[in-house]
Amino acid sequence: MRLALEKGFFFPSSEIYSGPAGFWEYGPLGVGFRNKFVEVWRRELLRKDGMLEIDGSQIMTKDVFRASGHLDSFTDPIVKCKKCGSIFRADRLVSEKTGTLVTEGSSEKELDDLIEKHLIRCSKCGADFGGTKKFNLMMSVEIGGDKEEAYLRSETCQSIFVDFLRIFKVMRCKLPVAIAQFGKSFRNEISPRQSMIRLREFYQCEIEIFFNPNQSDVFQKYDGISKNRLRVCLDGKKSQNMSCSELLKKGILPSQMIAYYLVLLQSFYEKTGLDMTRARFRLLSDAERAFYSSFAFDFEVETSMGWTELVACNYRTDYDLVRHGQTSGREHSVMDGEAQVVPHIFELSMGVDRSIWAILEHSLTKHEERDVLELKPYLAPIQIGVFPLVNRDGMEEKAAEVLSKIRKDFNAFYDRSGSIGRRYRRADEIGVPKCLTIDTETLANDTVTIRDRDSMKQSRVHLDELRGILNTTFLFPD
Amino acid sequence: MRLALEKGFFFPSSEIYSGPAGFWEYGPLGVGFRNKFVEVWRRELLRKDGMLEIDGSQIMTKDVFRASGHLDSFTDPIVKCKKCGSIFRADRLVSEKTGTLVTEGSSEKELDDLIEKHLIRCSKCGADFGGTKKFNLMMSVEIGGDKEEAYLRSETCQSIFVDFLRIFKVMRCKLPVAIAQFGKSFRNEISPRQSMIRLREFYQCEIEIFFNPNQSDVFQKYDGISKNRLRVCLDGKKSQNMSCSELLKKGILPSQMIAYYLVLLQSFYEKTGLDMTRARFRLLSDAERAFYSSFAFDFEVETSMGWTELVACNYRTDYDLVRHGQTSGREHSVMDGEAQVVPHIFELSMGVDRSIWAILEHSLTKHEERDVLELKPYLAPIQIGVFPLVNRDGMEEKAAEVLSKIRKDFNAFYDRSGSIGRRYRRADEIGVPKCLTIDTETLANDTVTIRDRDSMKQSRVHLDELRGILNTTFLFPD
Repeated sequence: MRLALEKGFFFPSSEIYSGPAGFWEYGPLGVGFRNKFVEVWRRELLRKDGMLEIDGSQIMTKDVFRASGHLDSFTDPIVKCKKCGSIFRADRLVSEKTGTLVTEGSSEKELDDLIEKHLIRCSKCGADFGGTKKFNLMMSVEIGGDKEEAYLRSETCQSIFVDFLRIFKVMRCKLPVAIAQFGKSFRNEISPRQSMIRLREFYQCEIEIFFNPNQSDVFQKYDGISKNRLRVCLDGKKSQNMSCSELLKKGILPSQMIAYYLVLLQSFYEKTGLDMTRARFRLLSDAERAFYSSFAFDFEVETSMGWTELVACNYRTDYDLVRHGQTSGREHSVMDGEAQVVPHIFELSMGVDRSIWAILEHSLTKHEERDVLELKPYLAPIQIGVFPLVNRDGMEEKAAEVLSKIRKDFNAFYDRSGSIGRRYRRADEIGVPKCLTIDTETLANDTVTIRDRDSMKQSRVHLDELRGILNTTFLFPD
Repeated sequence: MRLALEKGFFFPSSEIYSGPAGFWEYGPLGVGFRNKFVEVWRRELLRKDGMLEIDGSQIMTKDVFRASGHLDSFTDPIVKCKKCGSIFRADRLVSEKTGTLVTEGSSEKELDDLIEKHLIRCSKCGADFGGTKKFNLMMSVEIGGDKEEAYLRSETCQSIFVDFLRIFKVMRCKLPVAIAQFGKSFRNEISPRQSMIRLREFYQCEIEIFFNPNQSDVFQKYDGISKNRLRVCLDGKKSQNMSCSELLKKGILPSQMIAYYLVLLQSFYEKTGLDMTRARFRLLSDAERAFYSSFAFDFEVETSMGWTELVACNYRTDYDLVRHGQTSGREHSVMDGEAQVVPHIFELSMGVDRSIWAILEHSLTKHEERDVLELKPYLAPIQIGVFPLVNRDGMEEKAAEVLSKIRKDFNAFYDRSGSIGRRYRRADEIGVPKCLTIDTETLANDTVTIRDRDSMKQSRVHLDELRGILNTTFLFPD
């Protein structure tokens, strides 16, 4: 967190005004890193699999969330102190005070009983609470002079569902088809904490796979990955590596298609530099699953905040398209061969900000005399440091010349202050993979020192070779 | 518009529910094109000039817009029909009915007088209006259980202003420094029309250049561009090309620094494929300028909807940092050499959706027997079409093999339906620069036909040469 704040990865929004919690800004390093993360997502999931990407409006009309069930059901239980008016999320309060986990689906009555039984009082003033109430997490906005009711979407997937018929038609799709989106969603959390883990405004990368449920048993792309192993946690405790064929045989995975997409997701995260020995697919119990989901794995990683969900992998059945079909009066079915079907949906719903946080945590390595952010070179927000050894004899001008040659193609930064060793440390801390130093030899023969972040090795290269070397360093590996 | 809707560039949001106007979705081709547009913006403005990029939260606390003046002043005049309740934007209504342009700054009294003088009545039912009122365009949201007042930002630049002190410090900046942002803004327009031109939720690319007003006369980077010519319109009618040195000498441009950034902007748009003979920098009159602006050019292009503003280039003075300093109680000054200064700001505020629209319009060319979307290859959302000549003899399998080899690095699509000529036409219409056809010769000797969109020329290349050719085609030119 210190690194994030002091180096410009991210920091609280409206900071000079002490704005409300749960809103964060990406600084220059954060934007660069996140954009590259999203590009790897596009490359390793979307383009590799031939998915379509859309970008929908964040404000959507009321009917969307009437159909999706969010207006009725997307609530958290809250209690309000009768005396000081402080508001708490009831289930979390009870969990904290009793030390036992309260499931998210507990009723208001159950929570009231627990509060009474354990004599739970306001944490701020000690007074009694009024009864538990439902608090809807949707954020509403009024549109135009008529104040038409609309909402900030609470999940990006709703855009994909309501756009499905048009996309399927204009892109001349066939089932199965995957439609993806990177964008913001909004949830009016009662007490957002844990910095980037629980936000009120956050980025998602969601992938919705539409398929014919009668045709999902045999999935051609599965053939190439049947022996791949997934790291799964079936009992909420122990993780184990199991092959896809084994998971299918034991009935843990419902279909070849789902196996294929979980493998694709796992292999994407491997490439982001996440420590995969601290990651797992955790099978959710019936009580934990969302109401529309008939099968769900959470892709989780271990961070300083415990096991954290990065991706919800949900089999949403035909719930979404049936509901939007009923509410809009326009049946959401398409032709698959000779059959008219309402597609079922399998979803990979990724939290981007959390993923960014987890990768940063897993990448930060403390060595004896330096901190190194060991980001993959293709994910580093700053790729190259350019340093004049000393600020005289024309070295600065030469460094500026080198910088101007590379900086349209690479993210390069210039640093002239402090000893060269100190400049290397600063670069290591923010994960710069290569640093170039301009010295007297550069002025004599156009060679520079290129220094590697991880090995700290230095070598001399001619400026004519530089572009080739940098291209190879930052190329995405196949 | 037909192309946009039918090919998946963009289409109305919440379409199946007839949602409110002014909200649009980008379909697969639109997302691809827009992302590439933003990448060119990053390359040709941000990286070329060494700017910093941030990504701030869209919901910001009330104080931000109290300081910026938006809560008081960001209003449009409206009238409401006494009988049917229809709401109109008063200045536009008067303009339309009288055929004379009403300036945006007209008072409620002036508008009421014009309505009375010209006997303007409700366009829907013919009844009288109540008096003109101010309607604030900010969209409010309530945060958390306490319903804390916050707003969706109406311009991305406010994030840059409130983050300025932190960014300046953690990125170890010196004046002048440019901070940029790509992101969404929200304005509660009364009657949004003209598709992508006037939206309620829209993308901006904003660049804020912070500088010491006492040091802006001499600007080193100006030396390289003093002879560059800008296409300016000084009287609102005639456009002419004038060199920067001439514009400075005549006092039309206030500083070398501003000249440099206008040249940078113009050269960016040249690379997007906009027809620059239909573009101009129009000098705004005193009455047209925003209240905080002491000098302003609009970068405009001619489209089917007339001259359309794409970028507002505003000299915002020290207005923003002084106001945020006063409201937050934290002076927004920094050291510049020996002096403590409140930086002045010059801004390039770009409408992304409008730019996308204009480039598409300027790129769509009707030939006798085909429509071609002549996008620059590096901006084409789909770069390569892969077609099996016929669907037998293993050509489909071979085509799939070719596709899988290139599609992680390029945006490629597969099309097997219809005659090859028809497939070329379909590709031309959405701007695909290169198409590969797999035929019997491919099966025999691993060569494919590569067909060029613009020249329609075909040549045979070996699959081993393919990557090299595609790399060259889609490389960004220096």
